[in-house]
Amino acid sequence: MENEHLQNWINKRKERRSSLTADALVSRIKDGDREALATAITLVESTRFEDSNLAKSIVNSCVAIKKESIRIGITGVPGVGKSTFIEAFGMFLAEKQLKIAVLAFDPTSQATGGSILGDKTRMQELSQMKNVFIRPSAAGQTLGGVARKTRETIYLCEAAGYDIILIETVGVGQSEIMVHSMVDFFMLLMLSGAGDELQGIKRGIMEMADALIITKSDGDNLKSATAAAKEYAGALHLFPPKPSGWQTPSFTCSALENKNIDKAWTTIDKYISQTQQNGWFALNRAKQDQFWLRESLREMILSDFFDDEAWKKEYEIIAEKVANGEISAFTAAENLYSNYKKSKN
Amino acid sequence: MENEHLQNWINKRKERRSSLTADALVSRIKDGDREALATAITLVESTRFEDSNLAKSIVNSCVAIKKESIRIGITGVPGVGKSTFIEAFGMFLAEKQLKIAVLAFDPTSQATGGSILGDKTRMQELSQMKNVFIRPSAAGQTLGGVARKTRETIYLCEAAGYDIILIETVGVGQSEIMVHSMVDFFMLLMLSGAGDELQGIKRGIMEMADALIITKSDGDNLKSATAAAKEYAGALHLFPPKPSGWQTPSFTCSALENKNIDKAWTTIDKYISQTQQNGWFALNRAKQDQFWLRESLREMILSDFFDDEAWKKEYEIIAEKVANGEISAFTAAENLYSNYKKSKN
Repeated sequence: MENEHLQNWINKRKERRSSLTADALVSRIKDGDREALATAITLVESTRFEDSNLAKSIVNSCVAIKKESIRIGITGVPGVGKSTFIEAFGMFLAEKQLKIAVLAFDPTSQATGGSILGDKTRMQELSQMKNVFIRPSAAGQTLGGVARKTRETIYLCEAAGYDIILIETVGVGQSEIMVHSMVDFFMLLMLSGAGDELQGIKRGIMEMADALIITKSDGDNLKSATAAAKEYAGALHLFPPKPSGWQTPSFTCSALENKNIDKAWTTIDKYISQTQQNGWFALNRAKQDQFWLRESLREMILSDFFDDEAWKKEYEIIAEKVANGEISAFTAAENLYSNYKKSKN
Repeated sequence: MENEHLQNWINKRKERRSSLTADALVSRIKDGDREALATAITLVESTRFEDSNLAKSIVNSCVAIKKESIRIGITGVPGVGKSTFIEAFGMFLAEKQLKIAVLAFDPTSQATGGSILGDKTRMQELSQMKNVFIRPSAAGQTLGGVARKTRETIYLCEAAGYDIILIETVGVGQSEIMVHSMVDFFMLLMLSGAGDELQGIKRGIMEMADALIITKSDGDNLKSATAAAKEYAGALHLFPPKPSGWQTPSFTCSALENKNIDKAWTTIDKYISQTQQNGWFALNRAKQDQFWLRESLREMILSDFFDDEAWKKEYEIIAEKVANGEISAFTAAENLYSNYKKSKN
């Protein structure tokens, strides 16, 4: 008897899943249905082949809707207080009746067990707001894979009418470059005081930042945070001018004391109006689109080989021989490629 | 009359070039002919299609010779004193009657006008040694392109009997990761004192380092360099243990006063013997070979599209439409890919 119930339930679920059409889902997304949005993101993140066509057509429909948001990247090393900042900043925006989506970009999450947004309790207040949508990152993907999926998720959120999209990333590896290539404004959070030598934010990442915010500027930290902000501000002036014409500011904030959270917003607001006026905003988006054209195409071309079961097997066999020193990496690559190419003609 | 001379000279040159066979060149390389080595590297670096087959067969022959060297990567931000260190360290090794090759890995050289090894006068003494071969980096390549060419150049130098290969790279961007994937030992040079916050060496790069050397430990710098070395040594102990079982040391050196240059060598020597004993040395090389198998294959597969004149043209047309907002990046990529794939069947 119980089995029958279970079977019924499974059948219903299957029906529901197969009845998912792109049009129906997109129309629910447009109506602000959060469950539909979550389902669509799951489809985009899915690695199941049977989901990929549906996902593609959903993304294409959402792109076509052309609703636009302000896309904001937030980075900083672990411990800098990204979650706490996003909680405070998100609440500030939500109280302005803006719709906020918070996404995580974390290609390291499989290795580290998910260091960002994995624990929703860290954003307890924010996650309960009606006009806020929080989505932890999908684990177990390559950097390129996570990048594409995050980029696609942005379009889904925009179609759903979110005004501001915050994309959190960890301050390690290539992830900043990827996030920088999909946002309008890029924020770097930094700690002041001890351990700065090891905090290790590369100059390249500082050059990408549109605002440099010293976090935890409260209590015993106040003095050193203020000094650090001043020092960075001086250093930022020595950087080459940005093509956006924007002079990156450096200031302190305290999520704990809700101090200068509004300054982050007025800074972004000023940036948007300045770059929309001088043309950089649109130019930057066009450049980003071209970057993603290239990235998507590269991924598709490579996937024809690397996601093919038969070629994967061939590859494994040769990789083993390379590791054993039976054949050089170059010769192995050439042989494999020439076989692959022959198979195409 | 003069024209006749010129024509003769041109014809002779052409003959010489066309008579370049892989076997002849490789045999001269094996005999230690520096001119032949330089010619072969130029062929490897060439982007001319007619050179590529010759280059491939030279590299394959050189790989087959299986002479091995100790491959050492040296990195650090501009201004840390890499050239000065390499000059001192190279002289130290050359005086031990070792054959030294110094290569530069610098994908930024086109943008920056060649920041490393471009100016040979910076290694005046070293460049005049008979058993030393210095090769500045080839400009105007992509990161992946420079990486493959550098990797191939290593094999050429090994076939030519060089015992130690030093690969210099700048401390910016992805280049450390690339160099790390082709060397046995990876050295990070750092400055002490003012400006550390901006020196911005990422933790990830510090974790890759097998030795952390504080440069310019002389004069007024002595005290702060010593303090920094101690501080880093403490920090390095907190890093997760390396799969090589090696505990990365941190120490000061002065190229100016020729102080602790020998320590760099004894450290490498100790590392080699320790990792050869515990098996890491061979395992690491096998892993590197597999990495390069994958990289080479990726590059070949992508090149079939991105280096094809007709597809390049198609790509440019669509990229323009993407920039103008006429078509989304995803749809454009899908269309282009599907046309490309159809053309293969």
